[in-house]
Amino acid sequence: MSLKLYYDALSQPSRALLIFLQSSNIPFTRCVVNLGKGEHLTEEYKNEVSRFQKVPVIVHGDFRLTESVGILRYLCREYTVPDHFYPKDSKLQARVDEYLEWQHNNIRMFCALYFQKKWLLPKITGEPASEKTIAEYEHRMIDGIDNFERCWLQSGSFIAGDNLSAADIWAACELEQPRIAGYDAAEGRPILSRWLSRVRDELNPHYEEAHTFLNKLVHLNRKAKSAKL
Amino acid sequence: MSLKLYYDALSQPSRALLIFLQSSNIPFTRCVVNLGKGEHLTEEYKNEVSRFQKVPVIVHGDFRLTESVGILRYLCREYTVPDHFYPKDSKLQARVDEYLEWQHNNIRMFCALYFQKKWLLPKITGEPASEKTIAEYEHRMIDGIDNFERCWLQSGSFIAGDNLSAADIWAACELEQPRIAGYDAAEGRPILSRWLSRVRDELNPHYEEAHTFLNKLVHLNRKAKSAKL
Repeated sequence: MSLKLYYDALSQPSRALLIFLQSSNIPFTRCVVNLGKGEHLTEEYKNEVSRFQKVPVIVHGDFRLTESVGILRYLCREYTVPDHFYPKDSKLQARVDEYLEWQHNNIRMFCALYFQKKWLLPKITGEPASEKTIAEYEHRMIDGIDNFERCWLQSGSFIAGDNLSAADIWAACELEQPRIAGYDAAEGRPILSRWLSRVRDELNPHYEEAHTFLNKLVHLNRKAKSAKL
Repeated sequence: MSLKLYYDALSQPSRALLIFLQSSNIPFTRCVVNLGKGEHLTEEYKNEVSRFQKVPVIVHGDFRLTESVGILRYLCREYTVPDHFYPKDSKLQARVDEYLEWQHNNIRMFCALYFQKKWLLPKITGEPASEKTIAEYEHRMIDGIDNFERCWLQSGSFIAGDNLSAADIWAACELEQPRIAGYDAAEGRPILSRWLSRVRDELNPHYEEAHTFLNKLVHLNRKAKSAKL
């Protein structure tokens, strides 16, 4: 049965699924949806891909599914996937699930909102957010990342123990996002920094490939900032 | 193996798990955690129940788990549960998962924030939020609930099709919450209202029992409002 992934490499859960699919050797067709050009907002996309008009989406045969964490679980049932990504052992799987549920309102929301307010919305509207607004969102994100490091990285090499799991992929992709807006979560956080290096190492070359465009943007933004100084 | 549920009936996911456990005939010990009295903020709770200092939490033998959606999935593996709550069929299960992942930042966040800003925080601080703030949060919540009705209740009797699933339990418990602060999601929404009645009917007497304290608060708040007029 054919599998299509609709994604944009600037969407965190899109990158997580992209890396997961490649690392699991699941064959799929890439369907790039350029969010910047509003390709997800067309009637065609709404009717034929997703009524939620977001990415990522999979279409497996004629079955359409949204929500990256739900997609991950579905793929683990439908394909043979390396067990460490989403262990069959009930308690280990529960620990991965615990993180994947926790992250929505603790990591994803804060990193995404900071990125949107500081970088994305000014690009769209042409108006930068006030320094006060950015400082507020940055403060909340910093609290969230500190909390992540304290709650999830204190024992074991990875989030759910000694093996890399989907929890690490989803977490790392979220934590890369604020770099576009100039905030590096690994800076000044040695525990997080070492964990992120392990995640990147385990998932390469797919991790770097999924982050090519993001890294290019980070580089361009740094260059533009230096030119202004 | 013994199963304990740490919960507060004023927490939406606590009620969802309470109803799910009872409707599935899973034996468990109730451990009430009074959030209003800060019982989750003690060192004892942090060390012995949950490092996140939240509810709900289960302790199954010596295995502790937080995050209601993760707990639900774990219980479905560990116990025999009526299939319609969380179907074994891969595509049906994916549809339930899709809702359970979607709800975090689309329903839960908006209903919870409105409840917190309008009702809970003024109780704690003694200072009511400004009308402007409440109006902003109400506006976002209304958009969220309209979106929920449009995206999830247009076909089938329940969220994931013709049978009640965990998705309906989790959704209903979230949508009951703003009633405490004076907002009834069913009012003026006939589709949502009929769905909510079906959910309540299918899950009674457990649904009403889990909402006893919430309904008492709604009644008291209405009485206090009438007395002021």
